[in-house]
Amino acid sequence: MKVAGKTYRTVWFEKGVSYYIDQNLLPFDFVIREAKNCTESCRVITGMNVRGAGAIGAMAGFAMAQAFLSVPANNAAQYLSEAKTMIESTRPTARNLFYAVEKVFHAGLISPEQAVRTALEIADKDAADSQKIGELGSELIRDGMGIETHCNAGWLAFVDYGTALSPIYKANEQGKSIFVYVDETRPRNQGARLTAWELQNADIPFAIIPDNAGAYFMSKGKIQMVITGADRIAINGDAANKIGTLEKAIVAREYNIPFYIAAPLSTIDPECHTGADIPIEERNEEEVLFQTGMDESGKECQIRVSAPGSQAMNPAFDITPSGYITGIITEKGIITPSVETIKKVLNR
Amino acid sequence: MKVAGKTYRTVWFEKGVSYYIDQNLLPFDFVIREAKNCTESCRVITGMNVRGAGAIGAMAGFAMAQAFLSVPANNAAQYLSEAKTMIESTRPTARNLFYAVEKVFHAGLISPEQAVRTALEIADKDAADSQKIGELGSELIRDGMGIETHCNAGWLAFVDYGTALSPIYKANEQGKSIFVYVDETRPRNQGARLTAWELQNADIPFAIIPDNAGAYFMSKGKIQMVITGADRIAINGDAANKIGTLEKAIVAREYNIPFYIAAPLSTIDPECHTGADIPIEERNEEEVLFQTGMDESGKECQIRVSAPGSQAMNPAFDITPSGYITGIITEKGIITPSVETIKKVLNR
Repeated sequence: MKVAGKTYRTVWFEKGVSYYIDQNLLPFDFVIREAKNCTESCRVITGMNVRGAGAIGAMAGFAMAQAFLSVPANNAAQYLSEAKTMIESTRPTARNLFYAVEKVFHAGLISPEQAVRTALEIADKDAADSQKIGELGSELIRDGMGIETHCNAGWLAFVDYGTALSPIYKANEQGKSIFVYVDETRPRNQGARLTAWELQNADIPFAIIPDNAGAYFMSKGKIQMVITGADRIAINGDAANKIGTLEKAIVAREYNIPFYIAAPLSTIDPECHTGADIPIEERNEEEVLFQTGMDESGKECQIRVSAPGSQAMNPAFDITPSGYITGIITEKGIITPSVETIKKVLNR
Repeated sequence: MKVAGKTYRTVWFEKGVSYYIDQNLLPFDFVIREAKNCTESCRVITGMNVRGAGAIGAMAGFAMAQAFLSVPANNAAQYLSEAKTMIESTRPTARNLFYAVEKVFHAGLISPEQAVRTALEIADKDAADSQKIGELGSELIRDGMGIETHCNAGWLAFVDYGTALSPIYKANEQGKSIFVYVDETRPRNQGARLTAWELQNADIPFAIIPDNAGAYFMSKGKIQMVITGADRIAINGDAANKIGTLEKAIVAREYNIPFYIAAPLSTIDPECHTGADIPIEERNEEEVLFQTGMDESGKECQIRVSAPGSQAMNPAFDITPSGYITGIITEKGIITPSVETIKKVLNR
């Protein structure tokens, strides 16, 4: 996607180095950084400098390739196995991470060059799948629609185009007039910071709304569709996504508003029979007790937004049972979330 | 209620002066301020230094009494009518405000002393009703319950005791073990700031959760009851309360969790046939785009938490249709939210 007229991906790999847009600095600063080795690439994922299902997956693939590029003379197997474990323990929920690490690991057993090639292919495929999701999903969008989205599943969450926002970008290109209701998405405000920044770049009309306000706008008839991404999808169609997705899905069904998940097939984890098999990441309570933003001087800073001495709970994801999901927009078509359909598409 | 061992009300009136705990400084500073005349008291309501249905009502009564205490020699009627309009235009949604202003205005037509007496009676009755709501509501609370609450309907929102938190305080006194899930309640974070501060003062176990997380904890079986306050209740039982209440009510019903509104009967507006008759206050978008809190040096400050140049929408309340409300906990009993029951109780 374009930033100030220049085309960027969120992450890319050149001569053994991972490059990434530092998403912790957005929307206030647009900075490209590099991670020179596997450990540095892992730190980028843990620190959420790169976040979002697809971008994490690509970065994890780069990290695994970096490990193969620096295998020591002794204890190679142990080194690689430890590197794999280190990458896999950065974020527990995103399916794409495990998918990418596994693929690159097996390729690396042939040669380091093969590991790099596979990592690059994963990133390219992520971008191509996202673009396809945009084309297919845009057919669901009618002129004049109000669309709510949660968190950021735009191009920043993937290598390019994104998932939930990709159909919106495409519909906008097709000349459809749309208005996007952007959930701010506490505690890390990816909606207010990243989705808002993306939509502004693309000149698409939107408003940030508090996470509390979705039902209000639905009850007023302002929203005709909800689209979110997913971090992992079970084989029965249950989907793990940013905390709050479940609430939006329940409320959307109450108002008979279609609720779509947009995600590449690589998000589906055949090992997970239902959502109950998906691990939920518990993040630090400080993300809830404090809030990060930009002070008057333009400096990133953190303030306390809660009573001192309080405790908080901070589950990063929730599971939306398939029954609330109207359809999953994938690169191979819009599918109903059921074991039969999902298995059929995966085996195609 | 007690703060550091000393008993306080949120607002009180002595010798023509309104005193109040400045809630914009909480939880970081506990400061008592005074408003010497009607205009100053209005500014306190508009600025949300005093907020919450009952506290606003009491303060509005004090403001109206202050107008009667300073009637000019000429144009008395016009002065009083303008004062009444000024008070009524501070916050449009809270029923208690209009109720108190009307009562004190009519009393003031007899004598300024009568206006003051009536304003004091309204404040006393608010405290007594809240206490009674606590007693009655506590019967719904069983030992070991997880209870979710939204925004702040504790003693800070009323003159004393509160509504949604009053049954929790009472149950705690009765020795029941409870755990409170406190919605942080963006954009103004009254949950994370005020409810958390209150519960900590009262030594009741709680955790602040992001507004996004209610459904997650319900789906995990952690929450057995939701209690919130209300700013205005229509005669059919539809209730206006802080934005997000509607989402919690819908989600609670989905999980078969009882959803209670706790409010004195003065919150019911016989002029409103349904929730559609209740005006919803739209507040400034800056409350969403920025966040107020305490910086490292302990100073209150505001930071930007959204992409610069974004727009936001900020409805302050939503309407929960009576069908989602298990019961309304009033000072005259726990009633089912229907026209018949409500009319019967009002006429009792």
